[in-house]
Amino acid sequence: MKSQDRKKEIIAIAAKLFKEKGYSAVTMRDIAQAMDIKAASLYNHIRSKQEILVLIIIEIAEEFTSVMNEIMLSNETCIQKIEKVIQLHIDITVRDTDALASLNSDWMHLADDELAYFIKMREEYEENFRKIIVKGIADGELKDLNTEVIIFSLHSTLRTLYLWYGRKKGFNAAVLKSNMTQVLLHGIV
Amino acid sequence: MKSQDRKKEIIAIAAKLFKEKGYSAVTMRDIAQAMDIKAASLYNHIRSKQEILVLIIIEIAEEFTSVMNEIMLSNETCIQKIEKVIQLHIDITVRDTDALASLNSDWMHLADDELAYFIKMREEYEENFRKIIVKGIADGELKDLNTEVIIFSLHSTLRTLYLWYGRKKGFNAAVLKSNMTQVLLHGIV
Repeated sequence: MKSQDRKKEIIAIAAKLFKEKGYSAVTMRDIAQAMDIKAASLYNHIRSKQEILVLIIIEIAEEFTSVMNEIMLSNETCIQKIEKVIQLHIDITVRDTDALASLNSDWMHLADDELAYFIKMREEYEENFRKIIVKGIADGELKDLNTEVIIFSLHSTLRTLYLWYGRKKGFNAAVLKSNMTQVLLHGIV
Repeated sequence: MKSQDRKKEIIAIAAKLFKEKGYSAVTMRDIAQAMDIKAASLYNHIRSKQEILVLIIIEIAEEFTSVMNEIMLSNETCIQKIEKVIQLHIDITVRDTDALASLNSDWMHLADDELAYFIKMREEYEENFRKIIVKGIADGELKDLNTEVIIFSLHSTLRTLYLWYGRKKGFNAAVLKSNMTQVLLHGIV
């Protein structure tokens, strides 16, 4: 197995263990055991549990950041931008459910620099999300409702989707995308 | 102070401490200290931390249950029923933010009988919520979208509202009710 593939496997197995037992309770020994390799071999690929956490969380946060930046730079309508944001959340949730669970539960265990970097990315993401909503209301594309309530309603659903999807593995991603976009944008009535 | 009022004060202060430090980390001594009374006096009103948790959680769960049962028995349309469910969540969130946080984070610390009672109430509540949605779709009141996606989208917002409201104390409850009902039922476009 190539070194890069081995690293991906470590990340996938560690994310699953972090989700099941909580980051603090998992040891490097647990991860090695789950991979059926010796702890010493694990250290050939990765220095520490902290490094694994950084790989899991920062990679996802950077993906959210870069796709959001593309969305912001595009000339699409606000509604199209919101649709892309919903799709982004669903894509990452479906592909990396465990890693997203780790991001949501374990981000506070990141060390100083990575923690600051993560929080900065999260704040920029939320700020961009807010800008889309504010512009959508100003342009008359969205209903003139309270900005905070709109943001929270969308955000609460998108952010906790990994919990729901974790229990509904195999739920058709295309059905999820089309139905959730309908519900969040146009309501259920 | 009347014994009943003292009990209410204990519950309010304990719920706040549970939210801040987590149920397991809070001691009866901490609760007594926060109330500026001796631990021995606290035991005159309440037997244990477990009893406080039961008072906090079971009372709220019973309120959700009884109002939901009234809603189910009414002759209103499904849309009206969903509006009442949204209002119920907002009313309890605004009135008992800390207690609801404790319900969401600490329910698993309930002892056997109370835990079973709580889970039964929660399951019945979710089952009733599902019945409203299923009937709404069958009657053509709601869009013919995936039931699970509709339920999750509404539920995720209503269930995490206490987190948002905890950071937005003082947000006008009437504005929250009218805007959230609009967003959840009719969307943002």
